[in-house]
Amino acid sequence: MSSPTINVTFHPAGVTAQATAGVALSEAAASVGVAINTPCGGKGTCGKCRVRVRSGELSEPTAQELQLLSSTELQAGVRLACQAHALGECEIETAGVGDVVVRKDLDEDALRSFALQPRVKRRALALDPPELGDQRSDLLRLWDKLGTGGCSCRARLAALERLPGVLRGDEFNVVATMLDDLLVAVEPRDTARDPYGAAIDVGTTTIVAYLVNLSTGRIEATCATLNPQTRHGADVISRIEHARDVPGGLEELQGEVVGAINALVGRALKDVGAETNHLFELTVVGNTAMHHLLLGLDPQYIAQAPYIPVVSQPLTLYASDLGIEAASGGQVFVLPIVAGFVGADTVGVMTAADITGRGPTLAIDIGTNGEIVLWSGDRLLCASAAAGPAFEGARISQGMYAAPGAISAVTLNGEDLRISTIDDAPARGICGSALFDATAVLLETGALEVNGRLAAEADGLPAAIAARMSGEGNGRRVLLASEAIAHRAHPVYLTQPDIREIQLAKGAIRAGVEVLLGEAGISAGDLEAVLLAGAFGNHIRPESAVRMGVLPPVDLARVVAVGNAAGAGALMALCSESERELACRLAVEAEHVELAANPRFQMAFMETMLFE
Amino acid sequence: MSSPTINVTFHPAGVTAQATAGVALSEAAASVGVAINTPCGGKGTCGKCRVRVRSGELSEPTAQELQLLSSTELQAGVRLACQAHALGECEIETAGVGDVVVRKDLDEDALRSFALQPRVKRRALALDPPELGDQRSDLLRLWDKLGTGGCSCRARLAALERLPGVLRGDEFNVVATMLDDLLVAVEPRDTARDPYGAAIDVGTTTIVAYLVNLSTGRIEATCATLNPQTRHGADVISRIEHARDVPGGLEELQGEVVGAINALVGRALKDVGAETNHLFELTVVGNTAMHHLLLGLDPQYIAQAPYIPVVSQPLTLYASDLGIEAASGGQVFVLPIVAGFVGADTVGVMTAADITGRGPTLAIDIGTNGEIVLWSGDRLLCASAAAGPAFEGARISQGMYAAPGAISAVTLNGEDLRISTIDDAPARGICGSALFDATAVLLETGALEVNGRLAAEADGLPAAIAARMSGEGNGRRVLLASEAIAHRAHPVYLTQPDIREIQLAKGAIRAGVEVLLGEAGISAGDLEAVLLAGAFGNHIRPESAVRMGVLPPVDLARVVAVGNAAGAGALMALCSESERELACRLAVEAEHVELAANPRFQMAFMETMLFE
Repeated sequence: MSSPTINVTFHPAGVTAQATAGVALSEAAASVGVAINTPCGGKGTCGKCRVRVRSGELSEPTAQELQLLSSTELQAGVRLACQAHALGECEIETAGVGDVVVRKDLDEDALRSFALQPRVKRRALALDPPELGDQRSDLLRLWDKLGTGGCSCRARLAALERLPGVLRGDEFNVVATMLDDLLVAVEPRDTARDPYGAAIDVGTTTIVAYLVNLSTGRIEATCATLNPQTRHGADVISRIEHARDVPGGLEELQGEVVGAINALVGRALKDVGAETNHLFELTVVGNTAMHHLLLGLDPQYIAQAPYIPVVSQPLTLYASDLGIEAASGGQVFVLPIVAGFVGADTVGVMTAADITGRGPTLAIDIGTNGEIVLWSGDRLLCASAAAGPAFEGARISQGMYAAPGAISAVTLNGEDLRISTIDDAPARGICGSALFDATAVLLETGALEVNGRLAAEADGLPAAIAARMSGEGNGRRVLLASEAIAHRAHPVYLTQPDIREIQLAKGAIRAGVEVLLGEAGISAGDLEAVLLAGAFGNHIRPESAVRMGVLPPVDLARVVAVGNAAGAGALMALCSESERELACRLAVEAEHVELAANPRFQMAFMETMLFE
Repeated sequence: MSSPTINVTFHPAGVTAQATAGVALSEAAASVGVAINTPCGGKGTCGKCRVRVRSGELSEPTAQELQLLSSTELQAGVRLACQAHALGECEIETAGVGDVVVRKDLDEDALRSFALQPRVKRRALALDPPELGDQRSDLLRLWDKLGTGGCSCRARLAALERLPGVLRGDEFNVVATMLDDLLVAVEPRDTARDPYGAAIDVGTTTIVAYLVNLSTGRIEATCATLNPQTRHGADVISRIEHARDVPGGLEELQGEVVGAINALVGRALKDVGAETNHLFELTVVGNTAMHHLLLGLDPQYIAQAPYIPVVSQPLTLYASDLGIEAASGGQVFVLPIVAGFVGADTVGVMTAADITGRGPTLAIDIGTNGEIVLWSGDRLLCASAAAGPAFEGARISQGMYAAPGAISAVTLNGEDLRISTIDDAPARGICGSALFDATAVLLETGALEVNGRLAAEADGLPAAIAARMSGEGNGRRVLLASEAIAHRAHPVYLTQPDIREIQLAKGAIRAGVEVLLGEAGISAGDLEAVLLAGAFGNHIRPESAVRMGVLPPVDLARVVAVGNAAGAGALMALCSESERELACRLAVEAEHVELAANPRFQMAFMETMLFE
């Protein structure tokens, strides 16, 4: 007998998955587009996919759940979505548990100015009606009015199918939409509305869509979602392995990201009252793995030496070729990449900064990989340092994404620590920016030694700090938030192994910076600016970053958070053909410095692992 | 109770249609791609869709069948496919009944010489394997070797999906296939074979495919079939009406021609042992209605003043956009058209003749419309004269296509007529070339008067001719073949109304010629050549054409049959980019002279209707 079909409803999304009884909650959620964060890839080892069961019959807690969840949590109905299986109808809460706080709004006013010059052009035309003395075809008539003409004709067949009726529907008054020299739509004058475009930033963790009115250049809606591929693992390597090792895995991953883009853009269009057939172009940035998975290209050679991507050049594709919903003839421009781990997102950062138009500048996007770009005033160098996911909360014992209740800042309050959480919610973990802060503050107070060891003795430490420290050797830890304010009834600690993860991550990034500076023959003091890109960069306090050593010693006034610069680059490429050309030029100009198996990098890393 | 499903098998094709009991034989045939000629559109009025029932239960003969079929035919199991309905399993013979003799082989040696310069280019490449010091992407590596490079990359996504595996499968030795600057395929060196292209001539009646090896430029296979759209009617107007008036009619017509092209090209590929993924490009010619129906474009405005096509420019499309089966990324080039009734087929004729590279030349393609091109040495003029389908056998009482048993030539044998049939089979009808001949011979002997009336009296006629004439007034007729040699047990006559049809048709074409000569300011004597295009043109005897007056009085030595010049034009465009450009230039250079409602045409027609 086959298992019955049951309904699993997720709140606050309010959507219901129909699935076979016995389905894992994470699978049921994924099937209806509810993103649940599973950085360990559903192995039940990270405990990050907590959900709360409102009602319904579920499988018994697994050994992993019993280990990772407190008895209070279990009593409250908290389960791990990757471990718990729905046996009957059930209602599940995901809100406030795994939701990512997406802080990827672009402050348009903060972007450097650029010309509005989109590829999408719209022209209102009054054509001469045909007569026996003027038998030009409908298209030629339109073409002549557009002033293009010539023998070479570029038009979407779909735009021609309705052409005779549209022309004759309003006495040959129409609005024509062109993508460069390609006619993509002809509409009656009275129903035509402004064309839209979408700039998409496909992050390993988060996908963001900026919906832009291409007549005004304004962002009219911003939508973001967790990348549904995270259910296969938090990092790019687990995705690449899924594509390589699981039959149909590549198509599955592509379908997930395409589905998420369609959902995001659809939501954004709905927000502004527009429809799919008003969307004529999308531009996309993403790291090389996200880029390949979106395009359905085999990513496996990115992940093994010599780290070769399938394609690096900019691509212009029909949206329909990717399954992306847009107007008939709508296109997708995928920004170029530089190398296996320096992707289109980094090209977006370089473009948004107009990096070669400035003085010597270092730009860093800190994430699982730290992408580093150095413009020396003469050469444009870039590299990717494998920092690991520590700064994104993975491999940190109580690490988490930037969600409500995440400790996001740690500063000195007199002689004790001052702890801030997102939304001032009760603390339930530590997110990346607080790791920088805590490391810097502990170094400052002497609680953390240069070699990365937490001080074994209280001697010389402020009493308040010493009181927070407990344990021995590798078990030593620092209390950040006590039970009193931790709603999960267990306190939040930063542990000695956490410090080791931070040490490796910052060491890798800093070593990459040092290699590029050495290659360019300049020193940190020559830098006019250090740009911190990425949502994460917005939350890092420059003094912490310099103090804990992920950044070289520079004047703090020169360190500037530039927000989602990758997304800004996609936006500029969408809005301006010259910015698009700039992106292409920069990708060609950029010299990639491979850090893997690079002796200079290894040498530098030995040094930069230390907290000096 | 719903009707049962039955099998209807057609011979000699040997294919079986599964259909609901009660299906018309013509519908069942169409459903499996067996073309049965139904010029009247299935109304049961033309009697051209004769088939023979080998076995099975069918509906009773209709009134139309009883009128159009002789009792001998009915006894022999002959039925009209549009009238007879299958009530149970049955076996039907179509061979030798409605089959068209397709004489569209191109004599390659007779074509003017042109450079082999196809858009499809194939390059064997030995790439440098990647290493840490050379991290170019797979595509860039290929691109650099091709010597294209640059920022703007054109590649089919499908060509990239298998790229990493193909490159690494044979140590980076591959064969790359380009369509201009577009990479469409990358194959392992050892399995690559020559690329193919197909030139397609979509006639109102017949579709022909020439399969060309693009490495050698040789035609390796030629296949032809009746255009399955003929089941909606023989002429373009009935197709246009079907598209306009029947819901889904346009899609149906498009599906029929696309299906026929796929079947033809598939057969041709099979003949040479190649596969769909070896077919990279197709070029297509056809009259404007066929052109629009293939493209799925609304043809209705072609058929009503001022006769405006949707698109006239040359089009390059992905085959997949039309549903045409080809290699991934394979393209279709559709030759430009000039006007509503001067289509891509005429552009093909002009191209094949390199018409503007010659002295003053008249080219005529005689069919339902007579397309007329005049190169005066200075101006390129063209027009379409609505000749009606008389020359194709429709509206001629015993007219038929060029099939075995069709009377195809009528000459003088001393003082009597000499009758020749196709394949020397017993006479069963008259095809177009014999209409020219018979008219000329009857004029020559005095049996036909200048005003188009058959001589009422035998006075002054050769006795043998006089003996063939019978009837009075509008019932007067000329016996061409007596019962003795007519296997259907009824004789073949040319009737007075037939002569009227011929008179109108030849008058229209000749009037068009006169208008163009007048417009160009030259006379027939200035013409260096008169080219007769089309399969039909091959069978017309120049002396008959001049004598009966469809051609102006010119030296017979200057009249040249050029065969399927439209198809030759498609072939040249397929094989040579410069010929393709020539086609585009000629379409732009050609001045269309509209004959409908043209007073000069009406004036000329009054004259040219006469047999002088």
